[in-house]
Parts: sequence; structure tokens; C-alpha cells
Amino acid sequence: MSQLSEFLSNKHHENVEELKELLQIPSISSLSEHKEDIQKAASWISNKLKNIGMEHVEIIQTKGHPIIYAEWIHHENAPTVLVYGHYDVQPVDPVHLWETPPFEPAIRDEKIFARGATDDKGQMFLHIKAVETLLESEGKLPVNIKFCIEGEEEIGSPNLPHFLSENKEKLTCDVVVISDSDMWDKGVPAITYSLRGLCALEVSINTANSDLHSGMFGGGVQNANHLLVQLLSSLHDVNGKVNVEHFYDDVEELTEFEKEQIKALGFDEEKLKKSLGLTDLTGGENNYPYPVRISSRPTLEINGLWGGFQGEGTKTVIPNEAHAKITCRLVHNQNPEKIQGLIKKHLEEHAPIGCTVKVSLGDTGNPFLTPIDSPMIQKAAEAYQNVYGKSPVYKREGGSIPIVSDFSHSLNAPVVLMGFGLPDENLHAPNEHFHLENFDKGILTICSFLELIEK
Amino acid sequence: MSQLSEFLSNKHHENVEELKELLQIPSISSLSEHKEDIQKAASWISNKLKNIGMEHVEIIQTKGHPIIYAEWIHHENAPTVLVYGHYDVQPVDPVHLWETPPFEPAIRDEKIFARGATDDKGQMFLHIKAVETLLESEGKLPVNIKFCIEGEEEIGSPNLPHFLSENKEKLTCDVVVISDSDMWDKGVPAITYSLRGLCALEVSINTANSDLHSGMFGGGVQNANHLLVQLLSSLHDVNGKVNVEHFYDDVEELTEFEKEQIKALGFDEEKLKKSLGLTDLTGGENNYPYPVRISSRPTLEINGLWGGFQGEGTKTVIPNEAHAKITCRLVHNQNPEKIQGLIKKHLEEHAPIGCTVKVSLGDTGNPFLTPIDSPMIQKAAEAYQNVYGKSPVYKREGGSIPIVSDFSHSLNAPVVLMGFGLPDENLHAPNEHFHLENFDKGILTICSFLELIEK
Repeated sequence: MSQLSEFLSNKHHENVEELKELLQIPSISSLSEHKEDIQKAASWISNKLKNIGMEHVEIIQTKGHPIIYAEWIHHENAPTVLVYGHYDVQPVDPVHLWETPPFEPAIRDEKIFARGATDDKGQMFLHIKAVETLLESEGKLPVNIKFCIEGEEEIGSPNLPHFLSENKEKLTCDVVVISDSDMWDKGVPAITYSLRGLCALEVSINTANSDLHSGMFGGGVQNANHLLVQLLSSLHDVNGKVNVEHFYDDVEELTEFEKEQIKALGFDEEKLKKSLGLTDLTGGENNYPYPVRISSRPTLEINGLWGGFQGEGTKTVIPNEAHAKITCRLVHNQNPEKIQGLIKKHLEEHAPIGCTVKVSLGDTGNPFLTPIDSPMIQKAAEAYQNVYGKSPVYKREGGSIPIVSDFSHSLNAPVVLMGFGLPDENLHAPNEHFHLENFDKGILTICSFLELIEK
Repeated sequence: MSQLSEFLSNKHHENVEELKELLQIPSISSLSEHKEDIQKAASWISNKLKNIGMEHVEIIQTKGHPIIYAEWIHHENAPTVLVYGHYDVQPVDPVHLWETPPFEPAIRDEKIFARGATDDKGQMFLHIKAVETLLESEGKLPVNIKFCIEGEEEIGSPNLPHFLSENKEKLTCDVVVISDSDMWDKGVPAITYSLRGLCALEVSINTANSDLHSGMFGGGVQNANHLLVQLLSSLHDVNGKVNVEHFYDDVEELTEFEKEQIKALGFDEEKLKKSLGLTDLTGGENNYPYPVRISSRPTLEINGLWGGFQGEGTKTVIPNEAHAKITCRLVHNQNPEKIQGLIKKHLEEHAPIGCTVKVSLGDTGNPFLTPIDSPMIQKAAEAYQNVYGKSPVYKREGGSIPIVSDFSHSLNAPVVLMGFGLPDENLHAPNEHFHLENFDKGILTICSFLELIEK
């Protein structure tokens, strides 16, 4: 480890200069005027992969932006690691808030500032650098490696799931490693072992064949807004619990170890309340602690709600339609389609008299969980310990990254999320940056991980 | 009566030709390009009033369009009648749906088609014609008369209340007569003796200092939409009754006579349901019959409702604000400001934990009622009986005409609404028209009314 560390410290300047080259390419996936930049970034990475000794490097065109594939498979009995990352970045607006231009990487206080620095060019590139380091210093890799780097993550990976399901053979692996997440804090590594899933629905109430005038009909006919309020009020009980039958049936309680982890990490309630401008953190199931509720419990949120007149002043209308948009965050073992069905059934069964209730089903995304005690998670923890001198924190994230569960489902392999970003590195915002300490230590941690799983 | 009738029938052609002249003036109050037409209509009417022998005729300029005043006061001991009407009209869009141009009056099937024919030029003009008829045939009027004709009724009479309160002395009278409403049916006259009042409120829920991401905070913080639903669901009970304390305190039950009237008039439930596209007529207080609920009971309607995301697709947002617009229809003896206060108090007292509730107060309008057994209503009924050979139907209307209660409050006189329009005369719509039979009979009915109240 100390040998590799010395090797890398001599390469620090060169590695950072190369990262700068990649960060200079404005590969914004959502803006069509950057289509050529996307291709440029893809070429740059595929050349880099070739140069370090990766084999069968391909730029695979999709209906959108290309996916880069590369492999190094020289072992028959060693495990195969698939590295996923993305080379596309978010737009840069509002550009006037950047201290230095977003595509002119600048180093200040040992941080590199540029769009994509932490999300995800910097974190993706350190895997390439780890492979290069091992190949240069050892002449070979301890395990087999595959890279799958996409260019559409910031626009929702529309073409990746199809690519995964069409290329299961090619992508076969024993573990998927993704570095596109956070550490817990400076010097404190973290492994995200769980993400919530998602399902969406829209419900519409319809009453009369047109809006009606309350002077002529007020008191006589149903008001779609009233019925929507009545229907939606049935979705939660007074304690914030979701009131849909069987909603919680498949939810597993946290293990004692997980509960202890969450308790040990603590949580500054007063600080959070102040930053959000809230007087209290109610919301959701009040019998669970806040950190559990936002990460490990399913939710049902009314994201949107509308009916009738929203303009200035007064309109004495009895609206004949009203609508709500609903999404659920779902946890491990819940099935998004099943939950959609339960909610649809609830809404239809609770339909008030005098209206039609129409429920349409939206997106779904599976929840993800790799158990903390799974071998690959434990090897990742050991690698962090080797480099950072500290066991990682085990995190459940409340958000959803559908591609993570896509990988886990399509390839039937554990996914390990080894983040090297820090929570305040402004991803998706002006002055995005990446701490170079974690760039260096990240390379070393990945080297260590690959060596640890060799056997 | 038969003498007057003969007199009028000789004048039929002349009277209709004069009405046509007035209907040719496009006095649309809401469109500034018709400002000159408004003045033209005012001049036309004031000249007419002078020509028939009315005195002290004035065109009184306001901040908006002018009010025409005229009087004939020759009796010391006879009652004084104030006639209110309006010479402004609605816009004519969509103009291509008119069978003949809206300002080229045309007669088909004994109806006169033009914008303003029934609302209100035709109905207002028949009062002028009644006065002319009596002065020409008798040389004097049986009572004192004042006219107050405005040009802003279709834009909400913004300047009339001020004019009324500033000119109480000048407008002193024993009864206000307004013909700007409907008969019950062809051949069946009606007196509208009650209108509902109105009050408006808006309620806003605010939680965190910005919208929050449900992946990071979902299950942990309050969702403004949920809290709004919770708050609004407290406003009605399961039977559609308004659940605000003291809301019904001042509401009077219908008299037995009123209940019988409503029952006798009947109501075709199946026909109404079919025309509205409804399967049932629930809504409002289910323990009252539909015709009572829409005319004689107060309501609380959520006219508008909104919070969070309303666009296409899905947005996993926890909205930090949500809003609702509320209006109440109020009945005789309820005070709009008091009711606003009660609802505000209810909303504030039911404020859910974890948010601020802000209630802002909007417009108010007083309810109106002249008791059926009041002498002026009974004289009007007798006049109808004389001309139509039928007692009028006594109607409570569910809508609000704030100026009616303004007259009744400012002048402290009973208001009698003697309508000569028919319910299907397309007011505010293309092909507005007025049945000439009711123009003629209207003149005669007003003559009869003036003679009846002489003593």
C-alpha cells in the first residue's frame, strides 16, 4: 500500500492535469448544442482507456449519447468488477455565479473547481487512474475489470436499461462498483448500501360536464375540489402513516446494527430546523426517528394539487375537475407496481359519491439494497480503512437512482456505492468542485479494493 | 286598464321603433373603445326622459361611466318610486354566432334580437314608456317617480355604491323597482324577493423556506399539500354541512308559505342531472331539498385549490406552499363580514402543526330579502295579476346582485324585483332577445303598479 501511495504521489500532478483535460470538455447532455462535446468526451475517455491498457474498447452509439465499454479479462478464477460512471454533466446556469468559468478547471485550497468535478468525471476518472496505476506498477490487474461509462445520467439514463438487458452476457460480473455518491464528512468515508425506489400516480376527479356557477348551483351539486380534498384526506392517518391497506406489508424493520449506526451518527435537529425554516420536523410516520423516516421508511407524497380558479381576485366557480399528483418513495422489498396497484385500488374504493375517479399510473423505479454484511461491502469497507484509517459509515439514502437497481437486477450482482465526493461540493450548482485529497485517496482506495477482492 | 291597453296597442309600433334606436347604440361598458357609445346612450336616454316630461334630468359623470337621474315629484302625500336600470351591455363575442348583427335589432317570431334587448335596455325602457303612457293619457302620474339609470352594471357597478351613499337625500323613496330579472316561464310572472350575499377568502399554507426534494426529506418534513387537504377537510361534515362554528346561527328557516311555494313549483331532477352530466345531485346540505339548497341555504365552496407541481410527468417535490380560494353564498340575516371572521377563526384554530396559515379576506356582498307579505311586493303581485291574469311566482335566487342590497341598505326602502325577461333569452350570450309580448305587458304592468300604490 505504501509503495502504491508513493507511486501515486509522484503522479499527482500528471493525474490532475489529465482530469483537467476531461473537465474542459463541456459535455452537457441535456443541451443539443453540446452534442459534439459529448462525442468529444466519449472519444477522450475511450482513448484514455486504450492508452492505459484496457482492451476491446468500444464507443457504442445509442438512440441518445454513446456508452463506452472496455474490459481487461486475463484471469479465469478471479472475480470480475464492473465499473459504472458517467461523463455527461449538468448545465451551468446561472453562469455568473461561478467564481471561475465552469469549463476552465481551477485549483483553489486543494479543490478542483469545474462542472463535473465531483459529479461524476472526477469520481469516474479515479477508477481509470486506479487501473492505470496497478497496470503500470504491477504489470497486471489483480482481478478482471469491465468499464461501462454512459453519457445520459443527467437526463435520466433513458437508454441504459435497454443496453443492460441486451448485453447481460457481455456485462456479466461479480460486483458493480459505482462512485457517484458522498462520503459522510471530510475524512469519514461512507458506503451507501440502500436507496429508495419510486412510483408515481395521478388522480383526477370529474363531476359535471362543465364548471358551474355557484350563484345558480351552489349548495346543490358536488364541487370537484371538495371531493378531491375528501379523497386525499383518506391517504394518511393522524400520525402521518400511509392509510392504504397492505402498503407496509413488505417493509422490513431495520436490523439492530442499522439502528445503532443511525443512532451513533446522531443528527442535529435544531440546525436542520433552522436551515429549513421549520418549527418542527413532523411529517411522515411520527413514531420513527427523523433519520429513519427520510431514509428507511416508505412515503406517499402529494407533489401537486390543483382544481378550479387560481388567478387574482374571486371567481364564484364550482369546478368540475380537480387533480393530484402522487409519488411514493419505497424501501427494500417493496414492489413499485404492486404499491401503485394498492393506491389505485384505495383511490377507486374511496371514490366519493357523485363523481368519477380516474387514476393513471406513472414511472416506477425499484428500491436497492446490498446487505451491509455482504462480502463485497465488507471488502470495500476494508479498503477505506486501509486508506482513510477509518471504517466507513453505512448509509441508507432516501433518494432513488433507478440505474443502481437496474444494474443489480439485470446483472444479478451486488452493487457497491463507494462515494468520494463531499456533501458540500455543489453538485448541480455553481462552483462545483472536488477535493483533490479524495481524488488521490480514491485512486488508492480502489486499488486496495481490487487487491482485496482478488482472493 | 283596458283603456291603457288600447292606448298602448296603438303605440306598439312606435315604442318598438324607439327601443330599436336605443339597441343600436353599442354601449359596451367593459371595452374602452365604446366609451363614446356609452355617452351616446346616456344622452339618448336623458333626452327621452326630458321629452316624456321628466324633470331635473341630469347626466351625472362618475369616475367611470355616467349615471342618469330624473324625477317627477308633484305629490306631497303620494309615495315615491325609484326606478333603477342600466343602459350598458355585455360584449358580443363570439360575434359569428349571432344570426343577425348584435347592434342591428331584428324582429323574428315576435322577439327582438339585439345585445341588451332583455338585459337591460328593454326592461329598463319599459319603465320610461310606462311613465310616458301615463303622462300622455292622464296628464299626470299617480305617484312621484325618480329614475337612476347607470352605465356600469356589467362591470360590477364600481361607482354606484358611492353615488348612493352620497345622494341619500336626493334618492329618498318608498320603494325601489328594478326590472333586470326573469319571469318564471312564458305567461307566468315572477317576483324575485331574495338574493344570496357573498364573502370571499383565500387561505395559504406555508412550511419550509423552499420546496424540498422528496429523496432527501420525504417522510421527514411536512408537505404543504397534505396540510392544506387536512385543513380544508375540516370545513364540511359528512352530510355536506358547513362545519364552521356559528356559521348557521343567523340563518332563518323558510316559512311554511315559502316551502309550499317551492314544493308547488316542482323541479325535474332527472332533466337537470342529464343536462349537467351528473349521476346525482348531492352537494351541500343533504337534508334539504335541492331547490332549497341552491336558493335559500348558505354555502362554502372551495373555488380554487393549488400547490406544488402541475406540469406534465413527475416531480418529486415536497411543496412548501399551498393555497385555496373560498367563497360563501350567504342568506338573509347573515352578515358577510361576520362570516368571514368565523371562517378565518376556524382556519387559524385548525392550523396543522408545522406550518403557518395565512387567511386573507376578499369581497363581500350583502344578502337581500324583501318579505313576500310586504305591501309593495303585494301591490306588484296585484299588478301582474291584472295584466297577466296570474299571480306571480315568488322566487329566491341563489346568486348575488350586490347593488340590490346596496339600494335596500342605503335608501332604507323595500326593493321589488319585477322581471319581464324569460330564462332562455340568451343574456350575456349570442342572439340575446326579448319577447315583445313582455315588453308590452311590462309597460302595462308598471302602469298598473304605479296606480295601485297611489293610495
